[in-house]
Amino acid sequence: MQQVNVGIVGLGNVGMGTLTILAENAAEISAKLGFQLQVTAVCSRSVAEKTLPPGLETVLRTADWHDVVNDPNIHIVAELVGGTSIAKEMIDAAIAAGKSVVTANKELMALQGPGIWDRAIASGINLAMEASVAGGIPIHAVLREGISGDRVVALQGILNGTSNYILTEIEKHGTDFAVVLAEAQRLGYAEADPSADIDGYDARSKLAILAALAFGLQVVPSDIHTEGIRRIGPIDFQYAHRLGHTIRLVCAARRTQDGVFLSVRPALIAQSTILASVQGAYNAIWVRGQYGQDTFYYGRGAGPNPTGVAVVSDLMRVAREIRSGSPQRVSPFAHERLATNRPLPIELQKSAYYLRFRVQDRPGIIAALASILAEKHVSLDAVLQLPTEDKHNLPFVITIEPCEEKAVAEAVAKMATLDFMVEPPLALPMERPL
Amino acid sequence: MQQVNVGIVGLGNVGMGTLTILAENAAEISAKLGFQLQVTAVCSRSVAEKTLPPGLETVLRTADWHDVVNDPNIHIVAELVGGTSIAKEMIDAAIAAGKSVVTANKELMALQGPGIWDRAIASGINLAMEASVAGGIPIHAVLREGISGDRVVALQGILNGTSNYILTEIEKHGTDFAVVLAEAQRLGYAEADPSADIDGYDARSKLAILAALAFGLQVVPSDIHTEGIRRIGPIDFQYAHRLGHTIRLVCAARRTQDGVFLSVRPALIAQSTILASVQGAYNAIWVRGQYGQDTFYYGRGAGPNPTGVAVVSDLMRVAREIRSGSPQRVSPFAHERLATNRPLPIELQKSAYYLRFRVQDRPGIIAALASILAEKHVSLDAVLQLPTEDKHNLPFVITIEPCEEKAVAEAVAKMATLDFMVEPPLALPMERPL
Repeated sequence: MQQVNVGIVGLGNVGMGTLTILAENAAEISAKLGFQLQVTAVCSRSVAEKTLPPGLETVLRTADWHDVVNDPNIHIVAELVGGTSIAKEMIDAAIAAGKSVVTANKELMALQGPGIWDRAIASGINLAMEASVAGGIPIHAVLREGISGDRVVALQGILNGTSNYILTEIEKHGTDFAVVLAEAQRLGYAEADPSADIDGYDARSKLAILAALAFGLQVVPSDIHTEGIRRIGPIDFQYAHRLGHTIRLVCAARRTQDGVFLSVRPALIAQSTILASVQGAYNAIWVRGQYGQDTFYYGRGAGPNPTGVAVVSDLMRVAREIRSGSPQRVSPFAHERLATNRPLPIELQKSAYYLRFRVQDRPGIIAALASILAEKHVSLDAVLQLPTEDKHNLPFVITIEPCEEKAVAEAVAKMATLDFMVEPPLALPMERPL
Repeated sequence: MQQVNVGIVGLGNVGMGTLTILAENAAEISAKLGFQLQVTAVCSRSVAEKTLPPGLETVLRTADWHDVVNDPNIHIVAELVGGTSIAKEMIDAAIAAGKSVVTANKELMALQGPGIWDRAIASGINLAMEASVAGGIPIHAVLREGISGDRVVALQGILNGTSNYILTEIEKHGTDFAVVLAEAQRLGYAEADPSADIDGYDARSKLAILAALAFGLQVVPSDIHTEGIRRIGPIDFQYAHRLGHTIRLVCAARRTQDGVFLSVRPALIAQSTILASVQGAYNAIWVRGQYGQDTFYYGRGAGPNPTGVAVVSDLMRVAREIRSGSPQRVSPFAHERLATNRPLPIELQKSAYYLRFRVQDRPGIIAALASILAEKHVSLDAVLQLPTEDKHNLPFVITIEPCEEKAVAEAVAKMATLDFMVEPPLALPMERPL
């Protein structure tokens, strides 16, 4: 085999980034591999309109992915279509045809990864999915190989660039959530339907994949406690800063004797931590290992080229394995090491909390709130109120000491029914640094 | 093959850390691998005095490494002895005996890596050296696999924990270099002969290995421009802070059209960069890729367990490859992609500079220095002088705008001869953030 042939299915941002890198960086890639990694087919519904990078003039161009999957000369299919229906069908067909697969599809791998991996292993082909989490950060390589000897006990990640961009814009400019979101949509940073990003579902898929890599845990994404960032406003950053914290959409995983806590939610994190310095569309992952202790990984979360690097790096690894005649089938889902695949109920976790209220001011408010906390055996830590004018919509904050989240949730639910509340309290956990 | 057998040679910190992790984390390691990774022999000159972790009661204990290398049941030899003589002999013997090798030996791999890799590849065995650079940070896995599709254009690293500890102690407490060094020696953070750490030679070996991984460059470590930290004092941190910077021992690599600049030296780096936040014995590496742009990696630079994780992770990877019947021989030295293996002379690089003087105060000093700078066509940026009493040993700082380092070096050499100098000027580059 003089060269390994690749078919690229999907010519959106990631597909075009992948083609660009394979074309421009071809000499260095060949030098590293010692053989040619050659794109021989590309597929897209709009393939006729695409301008391919130089060197790809003679490749098969098709709008039908079957042409790629059924091409006997193709060794690896890169699935860069996204979504869970066509992508699934295509990956299954490629595996059945004995082709290795590289995918950037977080949603599909989070939902169907275990089954797909099982079929890949049974067929003796390789599967790679570095691009599915935190585009430019090679966290798969890190967890699969770099620190595989360690026992990961916890991780915290910022895994959705869009929501991080929105939060850091609110933080920098004091602009309201809705205004920043509209601007992000105008700039193309957020989608017309922004829910996957701002409600945490995109980050949740990524956390499910990381949980598999880090803990060998097959988790159903919808079992992960998930909250979005819609309620975070400039006022919350003002209070958070007063507390020496900032606010980020944090993906957290923590292993305990009884199982794993998994959550995606906006949280206060100390400004002194490296994680708090992650701005804009960057992603970052903090990993705590039992032996190697803390490691931290940072890079661009998305974009044609950073994600393209992940796809190309996967193609190189898989191509090497094909050349060596023996695919390395290391499924992150193949090792079930935990007693249960369901994350522990988040209410059993202990956390300090930030509660932000908006009330109609009148005497007795603190007393009413404090008595609810006392009733739930929750210890109040501090009461903060920044200067304000509007007595009919008065914001202030109570922080509470670490306690079981169930008690906090019950207290907050009861507080929400009080007649002086302008809106339900906003409750954000204060994540301890790992 | 039901299990893969490992012989550990060297039972110092790293060897004992490796044994501890293999013993304590055995269940998780087996679950990840799907087979047993078994230590069957350990070797140390003082093996009789060593207490091994539970489960290793029946392993071969020997003081002669030949017993390990010649044991027909052993598949992988872990060379954790260090140094360049016995280690070299042992690795060569292991390769000749058809055993794969895992090593933590930065000095040997920096000096003799290319030849050792060539022999390993010729013998069809595998070689792994994750532990040789930045113990707890899996930078090998990152560069070899995670972002292998990218074209690295530059990197900056803090790769020596001892010197970083010393610098951050001087910074925090305003203590003199000699005092901090003595304390570090007392605590066991610095060796009795501290030269390898504080004069930059340890970091230089690591940079040579990173240059191979990142650029495919076989570089002789002594060709790397290297300066140590002996002259850095509290006063330098005071001035650096005034300039919005801090001082770290920075390993820098930058690819240009003409070749690669490599240097290890104390440098000013902006406090706003993540690299500047690296404290104490931590290591960090900032990588700039042409496509993936910035990624950043952070973790413990040394220690039995963090380095042990690197060794164990390498053992797992090599064991998988042995089991799959086809070692993946990816030599970082096998691909020569650069026109020359010699780094470019550092004097050709352009840098801004921090010049710190100690002078006998008298009129005309600035004029004398400024005229030397003008003569070399170097532009003065600012003159800083913090309040001080001692007119006979007056410190002050001149910063200069980016210019060719050759001109700065010539100017500084000429300045050193001026009769009002109490000591030669200290010249530190101000590293641009990547």
